[in-house]
Amino acid sequence: MSKESLSELRRQYEEWCKKGLSLDLTRGKPGREQLALSEEMLGVISSGDDCHSEGGLDCRNYGCLDGIPEAKKLFSELLGIPESMLFIGGNSSLNMMFDTVSRCMLFGTAGSEKPWAQQGKIKFLCPSPGYDRHFAICKAMGIEMITVDINPGGPDMDMIEDYVNNDPAVKGIWCVPKFSNPSGYCYSDETVRRFAALKPAAPDFRIFWDNAYAIHEIYDEEVKLLDIFEEAKKYGNEDLIFYFASTSKITFPGSGVAIMAASENNLRQMLPYVSAQTIGYDKINQMRHVKYFKNADGVRAHMKEHARIIRPRFEAVINAFRENLTGVARRWTEPKGGYFIDLSVPDGCAKRVFDLCAGAGVKLTTVGAVYPYGLDPNDRHLRIAPTYPDFEELTLATEILCLCVKLAVAEREEG
Amino acid sequence: MSKESLSELRRQYEEWCKKGLSLDLTRGKPGREQLALSEEMLGVISSGDDCHSEGGLDCRNYGCLDGIPEAKKLFSELLGIPESMLFIGGNSSLNMMFDTVSRCMLFGTAGSEKPWAQQGKIKFLCPSPGYDRHFAICKAMGIEMITVDINPGGPDMDMIEDYVNNDPAVKGIWCVPKFSNPSGYCYSDETVRRFAALKPAAPDFRIFWDNAYAIHEIYDEEVKLLDIFEEAKKYGNEDLIFYFASTSKITFPGSGVAIMAASENNLRQMLPYVSAQTIGYDKINQMRHVKYFKNADGVRAHMKEHARIIRPRFEAVINAFRENLTGVARRWTEPKGGYFIDLSVPDGCAKRVFDLCAGAGVKLTTVGAVYPYGLDPNDRHLRIAPTYPDFEELTLATEILCLCVKLAVAEREEG
Repeated sequence: MSKESLSELRRQYEEWCKKGLSLDLTRGKPGREQLALSEEMLGVISSGDDCHSEGGLDCRNYGCLDGIPEAKKLFSELLGIPESMLFIGGNSSLNMMFDTVSRCMLFGTAGSEKPWAQQGKIKFLCPSPGYDRHFAICKAMGIEMITVDINPGGPDMDMIEDYVNNDPAVKGIWCVPKFSNPSGYCYSDETVRRFAALKPAAPDFRIFWDNAYAIHEIYDEEVKLLDIFEEAKKYGNEDLIFYFASTSKITFPGSGVAIMAASENNLRQMLPYVSAQTIGYDKINQMRHVKYFKNADGVRAHMKEHARIIRPRFEAVINAFRENLTGVARRWTEPKGGYFIDLSVPDGCAKRVFDLCAGAGVKLTTVGAVYPYGLDPNDRHLRIAPTYPDFEELTLATEILCLCVKLAVAEREEG
Repeated sequence: MSKESLSELRRQYEEWCKKGLSLDLTRGKPGREQLALSEEMLGVISSGDDCHSEGGLDCRNYGCLDGIPEAKKLFSELLGIPESMLFIGGNSSLNMMFDTVSRCMLFGTAGSEKPWAQQGKIKFLCPSPGYDRHFAICKAMGIEMITVDINPGGPDMDMIEDYVNNDPAVKGIWCVPKFSNPSGYCYSDETVRRFAALKPAAPDFRIFWDNAYAIHEIYDEEVKLLDIFEEAKKYGNEDLIFYFASTSKITFPGSGVAIMAASENNLRQMLPYVSAQTIGYDKINQMRHVKYFKNADGVRAHMKEHARIIRPRFEAVINAFRENLTGVARRWTEPKGGYFIDLSVPDGCAKRVFDLCAGAGVKLTTVGAVYPYGLDPNDRHLRIAPTYPDFEELTLATEILCLCVKLAVAEREEG
């Protein structure tokens, strides 16, 4: 790759700007083709007879707080978590996470003396770059966020152990252990083991284990994540974990099923509050998922179809990066699953790339969104979401993005 | 009606006990025939094409926090509330109420200085007999409950004005203004006007206006409820009201659509927190309702069908009470809609009736459930739910209930 001059890059950039494009790389949403994969699920329940669950429960009526048995069975098989630990909810695992933090704030945890809200300043650890909506929950709750670096095998465990095991104000940590948002990093066995073996200074410390991409491989090879509950059991630490998953990126983002897993102690403490909150979640939609997939293999086969659609999109972006940004960008991730690529540009360049892209009609995720308080300390990270645009839009937007990175870096070198 | 002797009543009671019946008058749930009315809604969305909302929004995907425009239009027309004041949610208005109280606890209200949770002891007024799940929210939150009597035209407004206008610790009141649970009482125009004209001592006082039975008449005659927002506007009091409704007893209790209405100020304050809680509620289910009903007249026609099923059940119970309990019970309500009848027996007899019924295989709602802290101060009220059992079960259970009331009263008179 010969290095183009700043003036040549500027000339190319001006050409793009003239075209009046409107492209978008911000949205971590399944695309049209992916939504069409679950088309048949929409019609799978069409009469009252389809609504009857085991033991005579009518899914149309009130009742059944923690999910229908068939849904527990399906997700137990899929996630390898005992049915007795599962709580099946509404359409959003984010909602479940917010509600879980909210319960801790107002009512405390199993075995805690006081609700979080009555303990003055409390803190969460935030491996970053991370998921902006996790950070938004902390922000809403007034919980102080502490940034922890994340690397290919998981977050900086030395720092985490140091905080969690010594500071009783540290009450939680956000984890996306598999295909982490936005890096795509997966937690190594050692990382999971060190999480399982934490000795928190706070009796009401909890790990928010958001396994959002539990089965979201884009290649045939399965990426194994160690079972956090099994590991935690060895240390008597099962109560540390609040586990979340959902079908938002399996069936429909707006009408999926959210899943939570927790120890017996934790469920016993939280379910009475859930019972004050609602009589039950949408059981017809739970049944819709069960009837459509039948079993875990049904879900796994379905995920192969998603992979078939998503894989070429990731590859198109990564190939463009390899071709254009080798030696220019700091690095980019090459995830084996999930929904995002983290493009890391030389320090101090990310905002400039964002602005340049905007000028040429390519919308990027706000720089800093993947850090607590919206502050990327090195002005370095760009979150790229390849699933939603049309394929042609995606390749075009990526081409312009690459040019903008080169231009920003060249400006900086010459500036 | 000749008065039977205690020994004769005891003999009759023993006969019932021998039969080993298992009947249930506790459940305020629609019955099988009612669920069947919405059968066609289940299949009304069967392809992705059915999921497109105005302006290109795809209901299957993420987005649209406060409800699809079509749902806002439908419920605006039905409830007579401007679309701009509506927020359409998930499957449960109870969940919306819990979340609303929860937000007040953690984040405060529009214009408030401190969240409720940071103000020490706070109180709610609870018109009673009332809805047990309202009281359960207060109990979970540690909010002190103050019982206020309710009468045919609404709760004791003198007492309410006295509390609300003088005690800044009073932060809220639970209201079911139409076909109040369990009495079936409807708020008179004067009651609504006095609510609208409150001058709360607390700047963060709110009226929780749970219009659960907004269109749930069982006779052709419409029971008019004055528009609380219109009245409140006259006093600049629109911010006082959090309004709730749902389709749980229109379509499916487990898979309906919950509706909230609030002033512009209140929505502006709360929606950012809702946005931290979820990306959006189940829009496909919102669209399912819209496509099935088409417009408000569609819903109204549907409610006539519910009325046709429910009316004879209310009448069967009330006729049995008239025939058997005149001069025996204190009184009973004869609602023109809703889901419950309040049977009031002589003081100190309700628990005895409950126990006698249990002995004869008839399950009644726990005495006291309709009062804060589960304490009926006069041991007087029995909540009767006529919709769920088969019609034969209902008439049989009512016959036994009447006998048990007569027996309890006779025991007391002779005891």
